Amino acid sequence: MPVIRIGSPSEADEDVVAVEEPLQVRLGNRDLAVMMRTPGNDDELAAGFLFTEGILHAREDIAEITGDDNSITVSMTREADEFLNTRPRAQQSSPYVMPRYGVCGEASVDLLVAAGCTAPPREIPTVDASIILRLPETMRSCQPIFDRTGGLHAASLFDVQGNLQLVREDVGRHNAVDKLVGRSLLDGRLPLNDSILLVSGCASFELVQKALMAGIPVLAALGAPSSLAVEAALRFGMTLVGFVRDGRFQIYSGEARICRTV
Amino acid sequence: MPVIRIGSPSEADEDVVAVEEPLQVRLGNRDLAVMMRTPGNDDELAAGFLFTEGILHAREDIAEITGDDNSITVSMTREADEFLNTRPRAQQSSPYVMPRYGVCGEASVDLLVAAGCTAPPREIPTVDASIILRLPETMRSCQPIFDRTGGLHAASLFDVQGNLQLVREDVGRHNAVDKLVGRSLLDGRLPLNDSILLVSGCASFELVQKALMAGIPVLAALGAPSSLAVEAALRFGMTLVGFVRDGRFQIYSGEARICRTV
Repeated sequence: MPVIRIGSPSEADEDVVAVEEPLQVRLGNRDLAVMMRTPGNDDELAAGFLFTEGILHAREDIAEITGDDNSITVSMTREADEFLNTRPRAQQSSPYVMPRYGVCGEASVDLLVAAGCTAPPREIPTVDASIILRLPETMRSCQPIFDRTGGLHAASLFDVQGNLQLVREDVGRHNAVDKLVGRSLLDGRLPLNDSILLVSGCASFELVQKALMAGIPVLAALGAPSSLAVEAALRFGMTLVGFVRDGRFQIYSGEARICRTV
Repeated sequence: MPVIRIGSPSEADEDVVAVEEPLQVRLGNRDLAVMMRTPGNDDELAAGFLFTEGILHAREDIAEITGDDNSITVSMTREADEFLNTRPRAQQSSPYVMPRYGVCGEASVDLLVAAGCTAPPREIPTVDASIILRLPETMRSCQPIFDRTGGLHAASLFDVQGNLQLVREDVGRHNAVDKLVGRSLLDGRLPLNDSILLVSGCASFELVQKALMAGIPVLAALGAPSSLAVEAALRFGMTLVGFVRDGRFQIYSGEARICRTV
């Protein structure tokens, strides 16, 4: 894509930008949502979205995933379809699939329980603080698109020794997490009770919700957490750390899982 | 909020986090959307959201805005209400209010025309590149919350001499822009044909749409634009610049408005 650079050097040049395109997500014959995403791994995105929003509950609920560049259809097994039909209609078709937003923050956190979020195993695993500190560099070294465009959010799964298991990038931070969870779902690896999730930006309530749905006990963010993210993490005993950068980080919740040897 | 800092110094401390709470937005007696936002200026947020999504078209459409901490209701004049009722039902009540997402990127850009986006005045105003370069520092000096939490997106309006007119912060980048546009709408200052919009993060398609709806001719981002954002800016002749930092930036669209004296 042609671009003009101002500053040194100030010349017309070619630039790579992060691709953003809409994807229609269908569940059987229902139009469920249209999301703006970076194309690629659309099957993971759809599966992860449906799982973290509480629509599908297991890999076994999925009969088939089909799609093209613009849309993807997740076909459910007959049992999953019948179960979904017993739910209130609003939860079947609204783009705001999970009734996550209550009348206030307290109620929002309460609704996570109703939606199927459970507390991850207590105080397991334990993670060395030094391992947390090294996560961002490891993620960046495995992030091919970001290096070229600077316009993508990244999310990564690590084991408790800090080994990178999976990385996904997307213009939408929640999409990158959905792709990770979707891949894990399709591979039969949920719940991710031994994994650390690292996200490139801030930690919102929505990301805490998605991590809880996947059973992830430790969520680390390069940026700041929001107040509601901290509230939800505290309620479920999830470990939430923020500002992981420059040899530092801050623990907002679940410090029992962090071994402070540094 | 209590927090434990790892790294130097590694002590329990108090920390300020960015507040994120849900807000129910009602249009008359319709439940229109629930959005996660940083409380404050909720009337601007609601008015700006309704305007940039193409639901309301002028300040005169609004009869009254009322609300509390958890919800806000925009009451329309009878004329505006009757006009809205002539629209397809899906556009009246869906949280994805504007039919912005087509079957592919090309169609998405086409839909902006249908939604009411128009091209800003051509080649007016002209902005010195040196002014663009100074915008981020000016914004940061007027961003009180960000300095303490690091967790908020900011959006600012400047005139073409680089004078700051308005700044808003929010956990959601689009919310910060909606607050700016909403304030301008309520003050009777739309269209913003002489303003520059600066956003703290990346420039998505959605932000280009919102800027176009407000008549803003120049959108500058500290981060990268997405492919669809560039496509939309090119189509409407909007000036889109990205990576405004470290004495540099890149022009993706509408370079005729940038006076390259640096």
